[in-house]
Amino acid sequence: MKQLVLSEWLLTQLNHSDFPIRMPNHRRIYEVIRRAITTQILPAGERLPSTRSLAEDLTVSRNTILAAFEQLLDEGYVASQTGSGTYVTYNQHDGFSKNISLHSTVEEQSAEVNVESNAENTSLRLEASNGLSKRGLAACGSIKASNTKTNNEVQPFTPGEDDYAGFPYALWRRLLNRQWRTPDPALLDSSHDGGYLPLRKAIADYLRVSRAVNLTFDQVLITSGTQQSIDLCARLLTDHGDCAWVENPGYWAARRVLEVNGLQLHPVNVDKEGMAPSTKDYRTIPRLIYTTPSHQYPKGMVMSYGRRRLLLDYAQNCKAWVIEDDYDSEFRFEGRPISSLQGMDQNGRVLYLGTFSKVMYPGIRLGYLVVPPNLVESFKSGLYELQRPGQVVIQAALAEFIEEGHFASHIRRLRQIYGERRRLLQAALAPIATVGARLSTVDSGLHLVVEFDSVCDDVHIAELASSQGLRVYPLSHYCMGESTEKGLIIGYAYSATEHITEYGSKLAEVIQTALR
Amino acid sequence: MKQLVLSEWLLTQLNHSDFPIRMPNHRRIYEVIRRAITTQILPAGERLPSTRSLAEDLTVSRNTILAAFEQLLDEGYVASQTGSGTYVTYNQHDGFSKNISLHSTVEEQSAEVNVESNAENTSLRLEASNGLSKRGLAACGSIKASNTKTNNEVQPFTPGEDDYAGFPYALWRRLLNRQWRTPDPALLDSSHDGGYLPLRKAIADYLRVSRAVNLTFDQVLITSGTQQSIDLCARLLTDHGDCAWVENPGYWAARRVLEVNGLQLHPVNVDKEGMAPSTKDYRTIPRLIYTTPSHQYPKGMVMSYGRRRLLLDYAQNCKAWVIEDDYDSEFRFEGRPISSLQGMDQNGRVLYLGTFSKVMYPGIRLGYLVVPPNLVESFKSGLYELQRPGQVVIQAALAEFIEEGHFASHIRRLRQIYGERRRLLQAALAPIATVGARLSTVDSGLHLVVEFDSVCDDVHIAELASSQGLRVYPLSHYCMGESTEKGLIIGYAYSATEHITEYGSKLAEVIQTALR
Repeated sequence: MKQLVLSEWLLTQLNHSDFPIRMPNHRRIYEVIRRAITTQILPAGERLPSTRSLAEDLTVSRNTILAAFEQLLDEGYVASQTGSGTYVTYNQHDGFSKNISLHSTVEEQSAEVNVESNAENTSLRLEASNGLSKRGLAACGSIKASNTKTNNEVQPFTPGEDDYAGFPYALWRRLLNRQWRTPDPALLDSSHDGGYLPLRKAIADYLRVSRAVNLTFDQVLITSGTQQSIDLCARLLTDHGDCAWVENPGYWAARRVLEVNGLQLHPVNVDKEGMAPSTKDYRTIPRLIYTTPSHQYPKGMVMSYGRRRLLLDYAQNCKAWVIEDDYDSEFRFEGRPISSLQGMDQNGRVLYLGTFSKVMYPGIRLGYLVVPPNLVESFKSGLYELQRPGQVVIQAALAEFIEEGHFASHIRRLRQIYGERRRLLQAALAPIATVGARLSTVDSGLHLVVEFDSVCDDVHIAELASSQGLRVYPLSHYCMGESTEKGLIIGYAYSATEHITEYGSKLAEVIQTALR
Repeated sequence: MKQLVLSEWLLTQLNHSDFPIRMPNHRRIYEVIRRAITTQILPAGERLPSTRSLAEDLTVSRNTILAAFEQLLDEGYVASQTGSGTYVTYNQHDGFSKNISLHSTVEEQSAEVNVESNAENTSLRLEASNGLSKRGLAACGSIKASNTKTNNEVQPFTPGEDDYAGFPYALWRRLLNRQWRTPDPALLDSSHDGGYLPLRKAIADYLRVSRAVNLTFDQVLITSGTQQSIDLCARLLTDHGDCAWVENPGYWAARRVLEVNGLQLHPVNVDKEGMAPSTKDYRTIPRLIYTTPSHQYPKGMVMSYGRRRLLLDYAQNCKAWVIEDDYDSEFRFEGRPISSLQGMDQNGRVLYLGTFSKVMYPGIRLGYLVVPPNLVESFKSGLYELQRPGQVVIQAALAEFIEEGHFASHIRRLRQIYGERRRLLQAALAPIATVGARLSTVDSGLHLVVEFDSVCDDVHIAELASSQGLRVYPLSHYCMGESTEKGLIIGYAYSATEHITEYGSKLAEVIQTALR
């Protein structure tokens, strides 16, 4: 690399790197050159510019450059030859083999990469992991509670799996066919205006009545699911480096999307009344708050009225946006439906989102996002520009599915099936109370939560269950940082009703043996 | 806000803001406080901490704080009362009405927002634009060449519109039906492993033969289209602040996705041989290069062999990734098909992507991404974690559509139709040569390019055409920065063959009148 070019490049890197404000210049310059060496932008044998010319080009003192060079010399990245200059000595492959030769696959490496790991390790791993970026490594590293399917075989109790074997195929095929028989070119186009209008109207009517959402149909946008809804909110409402509050424990897939958008996640603990910000939390002012007030994920409690008021007032005061993820409120088995947080909001700070993955089938990839009136046009435009949504034929079939009442009766049927499975599972797990495990009493959703004392190793208990062919997730895996919450998340939606008691008793035995 | 809280918050902001390295501390502190005031995190009437305590909390000299305060005083954001302290005086609404009272709608404002506009304007506009973030404003601001559809009515010559009226509905419905008749639960699930295997195999076979792509089926991932493919590459392979090379003029929708991922776009001019990096360009080392080598978008030239070699060597040397967007190479009307850049790459630096939107129908939302072998597992995982793809039933139908030969014959048919429309349009536009306009001679794609002298106002000519009911896009709108490229992009895929000559002659007249 030519000398002048190197200076220019260094200057660009220095300007664009997000170093902490207090990091001294010599340390910044060291870091940028070191990265250039480890990534072979500066290959071994390359001569560095003289300290004098570099100082001139970067308009810093020569001492600053000398300090940076000395550190590079000390650490063996460069060597100086008297009278001839400073040369890159670092051999990439040596460096790597010393540092991470034990890692044989990308997955193993990325599993270990912590988003907040220091630049040193990250930049080394960066190259070693086939050139994935830092955010790339974080995004596709093993999510502890994910990646559980092998050959499409779902083991009993896997959370997040729904019983779409019972989906009314014939009816659905008929509705799709109706759309395809009278081909309207508009249905084949991508979706320019927030989605298929009749579907947006049908959803608005449903949400107004069932979820007390306060809206007109124009506020409803059709997305390709929850991930895309959250992604859109993060991109349109926040900037890189902004803070986002997330529930702890909470939905890791939402965290992942927020993280890949450069948000600094601030975990807020939950208690019996839902998200419970402390005085300390209030000081970390968020630009976005992600919450599941109707049925906290994964613990299941409903956010109390007081907490809702506090959260809405706080959001209004600090001009934060609230994402209300109402992911499974269709499945409330007893008591009155819970009103949405959005319906209580007087200030247009709440974005409400839901999905058809759990009621219809996961692969349908249709969800909805209800935005405040003054954001409608921007979100329509952003949705089109960033995601180019389509599948309007399926949107049209879904609109008819809802309008003709099939949606409501399908939910009723599922609610009955899942409610029965829940009761059977609760009964089968009752014996675990004798060893001190607590079974959640929330009557909604698609999974049960068992809680242990904080000294228990819930990961180990989940592994024991897995060795018995039962897939449950440890509660600690839903937490950020060191977790004192221990327990198991047990999905009952997928397992056939006739097997629940058998599997449940087996699981109860595993738990009893482990805790005894 | 309590004093200590304010200091903590300021410190966080200072650490996370991406200020230029040379910005002095007093200026940084000024900027952070100013933003807090304009966004009402510090409301009018609020008392600022004393300079002494602030200096202590931020561990900077008191002089630094004083300098920041003085600037705030000078600009009227705060006022000091002797003996009592410094107070926020700024009245948000006054501030806005002075600055941007002329803007009445979000769209109007965002249309004016330049991504590189200075922090001052952006932060003011931020609040005014309903709280959209900077990247949000950039993402949903009016794209000059987009947003052209009103009520689904497509005007003649609109670029990017395809003739899916000729799509074989009945056949497609039969294939979909076949999938729905034998309901396999795996088809209803989301797609965990890079997409439906038979479709990935069918695409691999097609690309190997037709596009000289060098691959095994496992390298093919099914995405929901080009936007999502580019998004995934940007997120997994680059970090916020990295540099990306883009062609100039080029595909603005790709630029938008790269930008929203925090990439610094570096425009590289194109000439007759395609992307033509200058010595100066080579100094701005990219982490990603986005290119359309088979048919440059929008100008249509093919990248020369020499340029391909140079680009691949350069990418290998600086460890940059190359995204090869092969968006419409199916539509080459004469001559031999052009081999892909990916097929020439010896070092696994190229990610090849294509889409079914143009051959099937836009709303199908299926595209594919061919990744180097060592990235396969990471991309499968990232695709699932970030986008939760699905629509496996449609993937299965598409696999059969390809396997049974319908895809090949559909392309042949479209190629014939579009080829004829192209010839008719070229003939109708021939007279414009008399006024010095140059018609592109590239024989492929779905649009023609007319080029004018650099002094012409192509935006005005496009408006004249629009007033005649003809929608063409000015070439200058595809450029970054000040453009010397003037011309029109004329789509012929959507207009019925029997109208091309009439519309083409009308357009020729508009151009002749304007240039004469």
